[in-house]
Amino acid sequence: MRVCNDTDIATEITVVLIDTRNPLNIGSAARALANFGVRDLRLVNPYDVAFREAVSAVGGAPVLQAARVFSTLAEAIADCSLVVGTTAGQRRIPLHPVERLEAGMRRVRGYDGRVAILFGSEKYGLSNEDLSFCHSLIRIPTVPETPSMNLGQAVAVCLYECIRDAEAMPVDAPYLGPDGLIAEQITSMLRETLERSGYTNRITSVSTNEKMRRWVRRLRISRRDAPLLLGVLRQILWKFDQANKS
Amino acid sequence: MRVCNDTDIATEITVVLIDTRNPLNIGSAARALANFGVRDLRLVNPYDVAFREAVSAVGGAPVLQAARVFSTLAEAIADCSLVVGTTAGQRRIPLHPVERLEAGMRRVRGYDGRVAILFGSEKYGLSNEDLSFCHSLIRIPTVPETPSMNLGQAVAVCLYECIRDAEAMPVDAPYLGPDGLIAEQITSMLRETLERSGYTNRITSVSTNEKMRRWVRRLRISRRDAPLLLGVLRQILWKFDQANKS
Repeated sequence: MRVCNDTDIATEITVVLIDTRNPLNIGSAARALANFGVRDLRLVNPYDVAFREAVSAVGGAPVLQAARVFSTLAEAIADCSLVVGTTAGQRRIPLHPVERLEAGMRRVRGYDGRVAILFGSEKYGLSNEDLSFCHSLIRIPTVPETPSMNLGQAVAVCLYECIRDAEAMPVDAPYLGPDGLIAEQITSMLRETLERSGYTNRITSVSTNEKMRRWVRRLRISRRDAPLLLGVLRQILWKFDQANKS
Repeated sequence: MRVCNDTDIATEITVVLIDTRNPLNIGSAARALANFGVRDLRLVNPYDVAFREAVSAVGGAPVLQAARVFSTLAEAIADCSLVVGTTAGQRRIPLHPVERLEAGMRRVRGYDGRVAILFGSEKYGLSNEDLSFCHSLIRIPTVPETPSMNLGQAVAVCLYECIRDAEAMPVDAPYLGPDGLIAEQITSMLRETLERSGYTNRITSVSTNEKMRRWVRRLRISRRDAPLLLGVLRQILWKFDQANKS
């Protein structure tokens, strides 16, 4: 498993849902797995085995059909060498350091073997017995006033953190402006428009011209938009001419 | 707005749901806002105004009660100076660069003003008209086979990325081992146990002793666990003595 390669990481992750009561949550968890390329879903003692019919799993269906049901957590994680528990908010867990998701998943991303990520029941979370199987614990950094997340959303956020790419760079389309000649045409036509509309007057025209030039540059008009803007200004000036004639 | 301060960022974010059809999705989006400390939810033309009764919004209720409904996107974002659209997977959008979530949210975190994050309808996403209001577009890095996320899960993942703390460090409880004397007691008692059980024999005992010492150190037995381990070994050796006597 290597960091920053989504597929590699995703194929080494097993999501284990323990004592899940609501089939819809199983469905939405399955969809989150599918969204982030994780295929291995295991269920320990789910409340309703009718989960395969869960309707909210648009796109999650193959994951759900391949999901395996176990009666104990020990069996479910038999082939996993790193076991990570998840917990909501501020729950204190004796003897286990609880790490923020960002930090805890760094461990998972760097791990070279099968990792199980455990999610407890909607109501109670992981039991103390479940916790005893965990090598580390992760908490999603929710606010203290509303710490508890919906199960499907918690799974989505955790898996997103697993596959996120810290190196992803903003796409700043490099700015390509119009040539100086065009910029100057825009500047002078804009000045003329403002003058003839009565927005400015000729007395302050020198300083206005400089202001106008700075403003046109600050707008960072793109090379593509420049002819459009010129056309608009030309049309306004034509309209002024027509008004003068009549 | 400053980077890495959850509260500050969260209070400057407005989530706008456009043409949402399923009240349950409005509910789960509201819950995600509440989980990550975002309070401002706005709805444009929601399909069912019965959304206030949405049941899945455990904890999201205050956000939902304060949510405002608008009939147009223009009205909904009137006080927002940065508008970010979200899109699923690989959809190509002419004239708009689409950034991965990690990169696009960097822009949001660094922005000093109210930011609107737009989510389109479950079925069609954002319309071309919606897109024309956007300064930038974000895609959640889902896999091409299953690009489309559940709305509530998409909101949760986007808001998590907003408030995540890149500086969060793993809690590596600094290793505190037993004193050398105790480590050596463990080593010799373990060697004696292996010898007396027949696991090793005295002929190779020198090399075994070194192996044993290395192994005991490699196990990184904690200071707390050392007395436990010594007690267990002492008990086993006592049992061997008893067996010899009888």
